[in-house]
Amino acid sequence: MHIAITGGAGFIGKKLAVALLRRGALELAGQGRGPIERLTLFDVAEAEGLPDDPRLRTVAGDITDSGQVRRLIGPDVAAVYHLAAIVSGNAEADFDLGMAVNLEGTRHVLEACRALGSQPRLVFASSVAVYGGELPAVGYDQMALTPQTSYGAQKAIGELLVSDYSRKGFLDGRALRLPTIVVRPGRPNKAASTFASSIIREPLAGQNAICPVEPQAAMYILSPRRVVEALIHAMELPGDAFGPVRMLTLPGITVTIREMVDALAEVAGPDCAARITWQPDPTIQKIVSGWLPAFDARRAHELGFQADRDMAEVIRAHVEDELGGRIS
Amino acid sequence: MHIAITGGAGFIGKKLAVALLRRGALELAGQGRGPIERLTLFDVAEAEGLPDDPRLRTVAGDITDSGQVRRLIGPDVAAVYHLAAIVSGNAEADFDLGMAVNLEGTRHVLEACRALGSQPRLVFASSVAVYGGELPAVGYDQMALTPQTSYGAQKAIGELLVSDYSRKGFLDGRALRLPTIVVRPGRPNKAASTFASSIIREPLAGQNAICPVEPQAAMYILSPRRVVEALIHAMELPGDAFGPVRMLTLPGITVTIREMVDALAEVAGPDCAARITWQPDPTIQKIVSGWLPAFDARRAHELGFQADRDMAEVIRAHVEDELGGRIS
Repeated sequence: MHIAITGGAGFIGKKLAVALLRRGALELAGQGRGPIERLTLFDVAEAEGLPDDPRLRTVAGDITDSGQVRRLIGPDVAAVYHLAAIVSGNAEADFDLGMAVNLEGTRHVLEACRALGSQPRLVFASSVAVYGGELPAVGYDQMALTPQTSYGAQKAIGELLVSDYSRKGFLDGRALRLPTIVVRPGRPNKAASTFASSIIREPLAGQNAICPVEPQAAMYILSPRRVVEALIHAMELPGDAFGPVRMLTLPGITVTIREMVDALAEVAGPDCAARITWQPDPTIQKIVSGWLPAFDARRAHELGFQADRDMAEVIRAHVEDELGGRIS
Repeated sequence: MHIAITGGAGFIGKKLAVALLRRGALELAGQGRGPIERLTLFDVAEAEGLPDDPRLRTVAGDITDSGQVRRLIGPDVAAVYHLAAIVSGNAEADFDLGMAVNLEGTRHVLEACRALGSQPRLVFASSVAVYGGELPAVGYDQMALTPQTSYGAQKAIGELLVSDYSRKGFLDGRALRLPTIVVRPGRPNKAASTFASSIIREPLAGQNAICPVEPQAAMYILSPRRVVEALIHAMELPGDAFGPVRMLTLPGITVTIREMVDALAEVAGPDCAARITWQPDPTIQKIVSGWLPAFDARRAHELGFQADRDMAEVIRAHVEDELGGRIS
């Protein structure tokens, strides 16, 4: 089978590609187990740093161009991961760009799937940013979507489209709401949540980091390793398992910034944790305080999705996967 | 002030226009009371049967054409009612048409408002069709949107856009979820709910009617008179009153089909009610059973929106407003 991944040059896209190639096959309910013969990563720039594998192809393109998306999702494509997005801070700063990529781009992906006539599977990466405003202490599956960013609104719209295209039989989609991903590898990005990875990643690499929020702030997080597992599991589940709505909030763990730093000290020692400077930034604090700190992800647990055990496990996974087991 | 109404040739658009002209002014919180100097009704066909009034202008046009929408919503427009839509049955039968009008058309209206730079007020007519699937016996304000029709999905998307455009300060919008409107005047339309009006309207006009659902089926309804009141009230409320989310489910009343027919007998006599033939249609029954039968519209009540008192009041309003007080 041929799998297409949009946003394939992003860190989740690349990790997913590596995991799929290693796995070699997908077990699609109702279609049986099929070997992965081809994997195409589509992004604004060609994905780099990937293993040399004859099954892998990288394509640079523009998701706001429907013709390019149709060429990406050709008749041999059986499954699509739609991960491409303009991140929250960026979509807030440039409204039109966010609408073009996050809304129009998603529509192009869905229309390209529909045009195939073969009901391809699709996994759409949504976000807990669909929740915002006046929230309960613990979110729940039947809670209304109340996004307070354009990014969150665009993701919520994408979910509704994925669900309706699935109901109409145009494709077999599922939308996963990702918690904040910690620890992101690489460099800080334009997401307001970027600090949550920086305060772990930089000290582990021997660098100083600034924490712009108070230690008692809590976040709902998931590790890259668990996200990749969830993306694969979601593709393999039968569509019926999701019921009449195809959107699902993934299980995560709730940790305060203090607990994150304590876990860093536990895994890497107090000197490592001491590389963090506390410099509260009211703007970022306000954004973070509007995020859902906890979620009762009952439906996702029932469907077999799994969260990390605790923050120490999240940090150890990062050390293993990104640092070859070495702490600076 | 100049007010524009999309879907202005529909029965709600026309009733709203008449009510606004009679009222003569709108009291916009923060802007004071302003006389209505101009009222433009935009629809696929020119609105007919309206009073001869120098303030009134009817325009036939295409909401899927962004240029026409920009010309409609010119610099002197202070308030927009966006009522235009492809109804549920039609949007389900013609997916592309529903997307073009209900999603793209709404985006054109919002972009035209944004282009003014004056933050015009906007009231968007949404629908309780945003709810569907596995529903509780009584809906509530914080309940997730789970549309099970393309129409419902498109309305939910419109709400999210109205809320985000308002948050960004591009316009001052509010989205009202309308219950099923009973008694609609005129002729049956392509909505699955059309029978709920037919079984009252036709007998009152001396004609026979077919009821395709069982007497115990319950519906959440609102009269045209109350809808028009709600649309005006929503425009006059300050945007802040809606809080961080600009969508609101209007108060309605829950009535079973049996109660509807009993009220008809009460208002117009048993001979009138006897003009209904019971002919259950499994397709329509299934659709109706997926609708929310009741809603705890707490937020809307707090904001001063009002439902009808009972079904007899709904029928009497129809007799007064549409039949000049006469029952055949």
